Amino acid sequence: MPPLESALAIESVRLDDANSAIILLDQTLIPVETKYLTLTTQEQVWEAIYELRVRGAPAIGIAAGFGLYLAAKNIAAGLSAGAGFDAFYPLFVKAKEYLASSRPTAVNLFWALDRLDACAKQNAHLPLADMISALRAEAVAIKDEDEQMCKSMGEYGLTLLKPGMGLLTHCNPGTLATARYGTATAPMYLGQERGYDFKVFADETRPLLQGGRLTTFELQSAGIDVTVICDNMASIVMKNGWVHAALVGCDRVAANGDFANKIGTSGVAILAKHYNIPFYVFAPTSTIDLNCATGDDIHIELRNPDEIKTKWYARPMVPQDVKAYNPAFDVTDHSLVTAIVTENGIAYPPFSESLPRMMSPK
Amino acid sequence: MPPLESALAIESVRLDDANSAIILLDQTLIPVETKYLTLTTQEQVWEAIYELRVRGAPAIGIAAGFGLYLAAKNIAAGLSAGAGFDAFYPLFVKAKEYLASSRPTAVNLFWALDRLDACAKQNAHLPLADMISALRAEAVAIKDEDEQMCKSMGEYGLTLLKPGMGLLTHCNPGTLATARYGTATAPMYLGQERGYDFKVFADETRPLLQGGRLTTFELQSAGIDVTVICDNMASIVMKNGWVHAALVGCDRVAANGDFANKIGTSGVAILAKHYNIPFYVFAPTSTIDLNCATGDDIHIELRNPDEIKTKWYARPMVPQDVKAYNPAFDVTDHSLVTAIVTENGIAYPPFSESLPRMMSPK
Repeated sequence: MPPLESALAIESVRLDDANSAIILLDQTLIPVETKYLTLTTQEQVWEAIYELRVRGAPAIGIAAGFGLYLAAKNIAAGLSAGAGFDAFYPLFVKAKEYLASSRPTAVNLFWALDRLDACAKQNAHLPLADMISALRAEAVAIKDEDEQMCKSMGEYGLTLLKPGMGLLTHCNPGTLATARYGTATAPMYLGQERGYDFKVFADETRPLLQGGRLTTFELQSAGIDVTVICDNMASIVMKNGWVHAALVGCDRVAANGDFANKIGTSGVAILAKHYNIPFYVFAPTSTIDLNCATGDDIHIELRNPDEIKTKWYARPMVPQDVKAYNPAFDVTDHSLVTAIVTENGIAYPPFSESLPRMMSPK
Repeated sequence: MPPLESALAIESVRLDDANSAIILLDQTLIPVETKYLTLTTQEQVWEAIYELRVRGAPAIGIAAGFGLYLAAKNIAAGLSAGAGFDAFYPLFVKAKEYLASSRPTAVNLFWALDRLDACAKQNAHLPLADMISALRAEAVAIKDEDEQMCKSMGEYGLTLLKPGMGLLTHCNPGTLATARYGTATAPMYLGQERGYDFKVFADETRPLLQGGRLTTFELQSAGIDVTVICDNMASIVMKNGWVHAALVGCDRVAANGDFANKIGTSGVAILAKHYNIPFYVFAPTSTIDLNCATGDDIHIELRNPDEIKTKWYARPMVPQDVKAYNPAFDVTDHSLVTAIVTENGIAYPPFSESLPRMMSPK
């Protein structure tokens, strides 16, 4: 049995202490090129987040945390010997605000930066060098916690699957978007380590092609058998008997189990129901919002029509004046969901009863 | 009420007698450019079919028929005065075989060329000029019959729809593929003429994007309200309540009502059933094969994976070594079909009883 490291050959973001750097996989070049960037300045980290070289909410948070830690280290190194927290902190806040401006709507970005800010203030009484060490530990913890959460979802998810199964996934609920393992991909990686021999079908996921570009790339890097299909081929692949479970990630789960995820997810769920295939949602408890009653309360972002009409193409593929409807997400009804896998266990219907239990595990 | 001609501003293929030419809309340039080609030689017609400047089985048949008629006219003009059928016919057969080599698997191509061949032999006793006139009439009849068939499907289809409805279609069952009206688009054009104000959603139809490129183009040219969506957005558009009927074309119908059509059609049918939306199939009786018992007997063509991975794009969008499954068609189960619209009327379930009646109308 190969070690897990062999299944996870790629890593979206990591800290390189020896070089005071962040090593970041440039996702804009995938799948043409696998290039790791070495980022040492806050400007470089800002640019990497702004230009989507790192994407996926958890991965952005991790990059920002590392970025602010490195900025703090550089700030402290630039201060005169004997300077204390009062000299340090205004410059630190400036660096934090600068990094926060890289993606103004990324919740995980602010959350990670705020965690480091709180940590700095909490350790203000320590010598600067020790306070910086505390910041490093906090940034590393953000990543480790995400990794542990993904791994836990993977272990629970794996109990739902059997060796040799065909799996279908949508978008990129993968290691590229997280610290490691990903969400819906976590059982695929753990299964790969344990010789499960899954056959994965990756919906290409129009219009941004996260499945075709990213999921295929990372699963193939791990040696997992992966086949890309157009979104409209999920039906025939299921009808062929090649899919034994559909696994998807999730952006937000409502109290009744309705959930929002990448556009097209609800269609996959309806097909899975039609073909009697289990449909599993991978949702860290951080995405479960018990204050949101149903999916009707989830706002759907509409994006630029050019993502459908011109993006990626060598020439426009839709007449210029034709309207395009481009919702980034859709809501899947809880009645289509077999189970919701969290880091604290597996929630089954009725979700209004099982989800609260996931939020406060024993 | 505007005349029908205003709704059908474009025409895939027509004969220009004054110039002894075929006027052919170059579909490879759509949607960037609307360019009509003037073809006067058999070499030009061959090239237009080979390079897919004309596509769609009926339209290819029509172009080939016109092409062989023009070739015959040129052959006759090149013969010495007083030459008869014996001098003409070997050259005619050579032209027929040449045109037949343009798309070796296009059934309508051979069918149209064979019709003109039979017509030539049947009129061998006539003076050459009269025999050529008979060929012209036969080529025109091929087009007129297709137009009449489409129009009839449109009239029957329109009885199923109401003004103001939202309609969803897949691929290009349109005027570009036929003589006029198209199949599933026929009621949209007739409705446009009669002020029905349909709101049409066109699935872009990966990987070849016939919906995004062609259906949007032709419906917009006719002034019909059309919105392009990615295939994976059909679910949310239906959930939004914007679709009151789904209309699709068809390549082959089995005796039990199962049918093959462009990949993704079965998914649309499953979604329509889930959302309680009627699902209508537009099938000329020429596509109904009562000798084919069920959809299981329909062979599905697998196409080049590069159509998914690289075609249209400015750079590859899927890692080079990743497998792609690229079926050109899928089979939709008859249980998902509300009705099958033919030029002879509307077949309702059970199709095993209603389809034979369509084949032999009173």
